[in-house]
Amino acid sequence: MPEAPGKVYLVGGGPGDPGLITVKGLGCLRAADVVLYDRLIAPALLAETPAWAELIDVGKAPEKARGSQAEINAQLIAHARAGKTVVRLKGGDPFVFGRGGEEALALVEAGIPFEVVPGVTSAVAAPAYAGIPVTHRHVAQSFTVVTGHTAGDGDENGAAWDDLPRSGTLVLLMGVKHLPEITARLIAAGRAADTPAAVIHWGTTARQQVVTGTLATIASDAREAPPPATIVIGEVVGLRAALSAFGPVEAGPLEADWPVDQPAETARSAS
Amino acid sequence: MPEAPGKVYLVGGGPGDPGLITVKGLGCLRAADVVLYDRLIAPALLAETPAWAELIDVGKAPEKARGSQAEINAQLIAHARAGKTVVRLKGGDPFVFGRGGEEALALVEAGIPFEVVPGVTSAVAAPAYAGIPVTHRHVAQSFTVVTGHTAGDGDENGAAWDDLPRSGTLVLLMGVKHLPEITARLIAAGRAADTPAAVIHWGTTARQQVVTGTLATIASDAREAPPPATIVIGEVVGLRAALSAFGPVEAGPLEADWPVDQPAETARSAS
Repeated sequence: MPEAPGKVYLVGGGPGDPGLITVKGLGCLRAADVVLYDRLIAPALLAETPAWAELIDVGKAPEKARGSQAEINAQLIAHARAGKTVVRLKGGDPFVFGRGGEEALALVEAGIPFEVVPGVTSAVAAPAYAGIPVTHRHVAQSFTVVTGHTAGDGDENGAAWDDLPRSGTLVLLMGVKHLPEITARLIAAGRAADTPAAVIHWGTTARQQVVTGTLATIASDAREAPPPATIVIGEVVGLRAALSAFGPVEAGPLEADWPVDQPAETARSAS
Repeated sequence: MPEAPGKVYLVGGGPGDPGLITVKGLGCLRAADVVLYDRLIAPALLAETPAWAELIDVGKAPEKARGSQAEINAQLIAHARAGKTVVRLKGGDPFVFGRGGEEALALVEAGIPFEVVPGVTSAVAAPAYAGIPVTHRHVAQSFTVVTGHTAGDGDENGAAWDDLPRSGTLVLLMGVKHLPEITARLIAAGRAADTPAAVIHWGTTARQQVVTGTLATIASDAREAPPPATIVIGEVVGLRAALSAFGPVEAGPLEADWPVDQPAETARSAS
């Protein structure tokens, strides 16, 4: 008689700094029998899994990611049907361009119990580590997050570049390759060419690098810089000069806080 | 001779479920001498602070929050100047309508070292717990987050309601009170009146409740429901019927994983 299926946890691993995983997400990793993880996941997170856990790299180069989604879904289902506790560990948040929704639907169709564990999105955290708040009173009262991944191929996945706000903050994930075309389209759609812009590479990690410019110049300014990158367009970029006055805003992982494996001896009893 | 100032950590406490705080944020709480916390912060988070820590409630009813910001800044500076390790614990993420940027600028001006610890934003996590992914392939390739807080008072804080995308997902934080006016303005600006919409109360907590409707009906559908609320407008709301097929997506805190105070005895050595 087949045993009951295991559960699948769709876990957001956060933006890069391993200390930015959630407590709940860390708990899932520590209970996992099988982990299917994306590229760019910090080794420190995988190191938290039990010694017996099977770690499966399902990361692909970005241009190959689409074809493998059905395979990933099939693996999640097969391991759960074998009674395993399965963690699907994704960069950032599972529902922010992470295809977590597709995986969740596949699990529903297969009758596999699952839970979503949200994560810190690099759309907010990478700018924060670079000294850029995505919202700021009197400066930006909204922010829009889009993927630049499929810009230019004209399919239905392409963001509607002409239907984006002309004010507020714009954050592009995975768009660095298409930046010349994207910035041209944004200017054509009414964004001021002198809007401040920043490209943040390896945001929130010790390798973080930031290039700043304007909407008109950033594609050229950042052309030497490789992915992964988070791109921020908006007046909030102008706050970076003041907010990065102290090194700590750009600091990498707070190693002393990682991992959290010691109870605070003096902790209050729960109130 | 005055001692060196302490450091201030601007920490995102996450959307409600205490398990969604980051590991780094939890480390800050466990090291805090003073914690200034917002309303709606989970008691389980405050319980993680050392027994000697001073816990200061700086939360105000939303309509009174503005006046007290200068006081909060002054308190952060005073405690840091006394050599304390200070945590400013905020709901969600410090830079998503959290006025973290203002606090950071005040600290820069005062010469106080600080660090920002991003958090999981309720703009993404509350919909996720309600079975709504903010992005989904072929359904929504962008999401925009705005505050409905100041809608209708016509000041510079008001979002530019006519300058929002007509496609993609729209998430409103703190807007439930102004929902009738906001939905009318969105329809006038070109959003289809039959766009699916959801209001999520007490998102990610055990008290979570979800009301669904359309852009035309949601203000009326949700009129009995009190704040705090996260409002989602867009075709992704239609995925909820399928994705909430299992209870777990809507589950509250995963108590078994909280707090993370036991090292995994079988954890791998760091790779």
